[in-house]
Amino acid sequence: MAESVERLQRRVEELERELAQERSQRALGGGDGGGGRARIEKMSPEVVDSNPYSRLMALKRMGIVSDYEKIRTFAVAIVGVGGVGSVTAEMLTRCGIGKVELANMNRLFFQPHQAGLSKVQAAEHTLKNINPDVLFEVHNYNITTVENFQHFMDRISNGGLEEGKPVDLVLSCVDNFEARMAINTACNELGQTWMESGVSENAVSGHIQLIIPGESACFACAPPLVVAANIDEKTLKREGVCAASLPTTMGVVAGILVQNVLKFLLNFGTVSFYLGYNAMQDFFPTMSMKPNPQCDDRNCRKQQEEYKKKVAALPKKEVVQEEEEIIHEDNEWGIELVSEVSEEELKNSSGPVPDLPEGITVAYTVPKKQEDSVPDVTVEDSGESLEDLMAKMKKM
Amino acid sequence: MAESVERLQRRVEELERELAQERSQRALGGGDGGGGRARIEKMSPEVVDSNPYSRLMALKRMGIVSDYEKIRTFAVAIVGVGGVGSVTAEMLTRCGIGKVELANMNRLFFQPHQAGLSKVQAAEHTLKNINPDVLFEVHNYNITTVENFQHFMDRISNGGLEEGKPVDLVLSCVDNFEARMAINTACNELGQTWMESGVSENAVSGHIQLIIPGESACFACAPPLVVAANIDEKTLKREGVCAASLPTTMGVVAGILVQNVLKFLLNFGTVSFYLGYNAMQDFFPTMSMKPNPQCDDRNCRKQQEEYKKKVAALPKKEVVQEEEEIIHEDNEWGIELVSEVSEEELKNSSGPVPDLPEGITVAYTVPKKQEDSVPDVTVEDSGESLEDLMAKMKKM
Repeated sequence: MAESVERLQRRVEELERELAQERSQRALGGGDGGGGRARIEKMSPEVVDSNPYSRLMALKRMGIVSDYEKIRTFAVAIVGVGGVGSVTAEMLTRCGIGKVELANMNRLFFQPHQAGLSKVQAAEHTLKNINPDVLFEVHNYNITTVENFQHFMDRISNGGLEEGKPVDLVLSCVDNFEARMAINTACNELGQTWMESGVSENAVSGHIQLIIPGESACFACAPPLVVAANIDEKTLKREGVCAASLPTTMGVVAGILVQNVLKFLLNFGTVSFYLGYNAMQDFFPTMSMKPNPQCDDRNCRKQQEEYKKKVAALPKKEVVQEEEEIIHEDNEWGIELVSEVSEEELKNSSGPVPDLPEGITVAYTVPKKQEDSVPDVTVEDSGESLEDLMAKMKKM
Repeated sequence: MAESVERLQRRVEELERELAQERSQRALGGGDGGGGRARIEKMSPEVVDSNPYSRLMALKRMGIVSDYEKIRTFAVAIVGVGGVGSVTAEMLTRCGIGKVELANMNRLFFQPHQAGLSKVQAAEHTLKNINPDVLFEVHNYNITTVENFQHFMDRISNGGLEEGKPVDLVLSCVDNFEARMAINTACNELGQTWMESGVSENAVSGHIQLIIPGESACFACAPPLVVAANIDEKTLKREGVCAASLPTTMGVVAGILVQNVLKFLLNFGTVSFYLGYNAMQDFFPTMSMKPNPQCDDRNCRKQQEEYKKKVAALPKKEVVQEEEEIIHEDNEWGIELVSEVSEEELKNSSGPVPDLPEGITVAYTVPKKQEDSVPDVTVEDSGESLEDLMAKMKKM
């Protein structure tokens, strides 16, 4: 009984506080962000309606994550706040991540009632309302221009939870090759681990990819890979035509991306280096890919050297494990693929690209060298085979 | 002391009422539903910022869907508006479905600023703002009580886009066995196709399942199946302990559920009968399961008879195809599993359950017969093997 009185008293206090807050906010004209609830200083596993973290903290009790609170110490930069990026930001915010840095090139306005705000400002407003405990930093610019690229590099290096420390992860949720290559260049130079995501122009396939500079293939190491559409390639997007988009595919890709982020940061489960999604067949291929020793990006090659030194310095047992991985070296880029599908499946694979696990194909043609005058052939989901690409490159 | 408790309870009620009023005023300040934009009479493929359907209609031009506009002619009932249900409703709303019927048992309030509204009312308010073209019908009740169950049956039969017509699909997004069985009973009686979804108590696995009465196994045909957790079973939920929840897993499950809905209704791609999600390993097993001729639900058996007649009446070629499916009949329930994984994979499967593809296991023990007096053994994710279950049932 005494307990019940205490509980009720706490509830009264809680409600009085909320009511006061609500009234002051209405007086202020709706309040800008953080309107939902008061800030919470420390994540608690207590199971009460007022605790938004109880069901996340339950992951500890269930033995999935050893230290969920650690999520608050991480900062993640998200580049691109479109279909995948906005859902990604929302999921990380709901998970209670320490800081989200959003960078987006503003072209369209966001939701109708938010017109006038840039996409990143609108997103910040919405996200603060969902979880006022998360810190936000927003930039509305195109990271591919020289000046903005320098600023972007600076914010990766210094925009961590504590100013002056780097962010823990960069997430690419952009929709074009140039922005991906800019992120790749920055992360190679800084040795910054990042994750890439993408959805095909026809909206029925997508992928995520983890890039650890020097350890896994970067975007310049090989033509970026996507999940094979398994549909008539003739129907695919041509330049200038509006791409299709499905909230379902966006949700799945954002979900597997943020799940991979949680596994990476909180150290549970198996982090995927590449996970594809083919919505037509409900097929989810995985694989990992080693970096290309002849990569065009000199910072990638430098990171590879450093990674080799790091591996060489490891105790012998771990080195052996490293060397036990299956390595394929029979393609012109020297790309080594470590497939997670069985040899049987590989043999049955009818794809045109050697050494790619079933269901995975190249997304782009390799960007032409600057000294070449051949027209730019970069087209997403071009449906060209690796052989075609090789033939083209030889002609250059 | 009793008086003091009563006084406190009254104060809590009073405060809750005031807070709800305050919040609904703020929420409604922006217009009650449909505030976002004007209704759109006809879906257009025109690529302009003001057309919210251009990127969905692009699916036609890309050859994915032959008639996307048809989405407007469908009505879907969603039971359960929690983590999966609310995202499911939002995705269908964004896709421009004709009508969404929401049924939910109200236990908690929704978002902080929407307290005072039931979960379904709050959801309707939010969804109308996202897409005013969608019709909504909401019911705040527990479908497992006799009276509500009758009403639920009536709304499945008559709550279609046109009153008096049935809905096209029922989606189960509930979190308990009783509600799933109630949906199963209703759908077997009405011959209503439905899809089930679920997330494990530890939040790191989930699944979706398509049930066509008479054609695929219903919930009473066999112990419902879930994706194996592949983690220490001892850490799993015990009765009364708060379940874990991750927005990522909810997003993926809602995404694959609504993707399956779109493929089913708009007739593209391969519709999955069962698709599992193991977040720890990024493993997505698929399978299909035939109904049990000895199913406890007489309406399921009746639907099986009708389906057999329908198949028998088909032109010969299609019947042959039907009979070519691999059938397994070596378990006590007479469940026939048609695996979509290879025989090789099946052989390598180390799971405790015979004839289940790798990664899939039973979710529940089979509910006891009514004449039995053995205590109810229904526990989600009990980790018991099929052999254990069989042994238990034999003792009954």
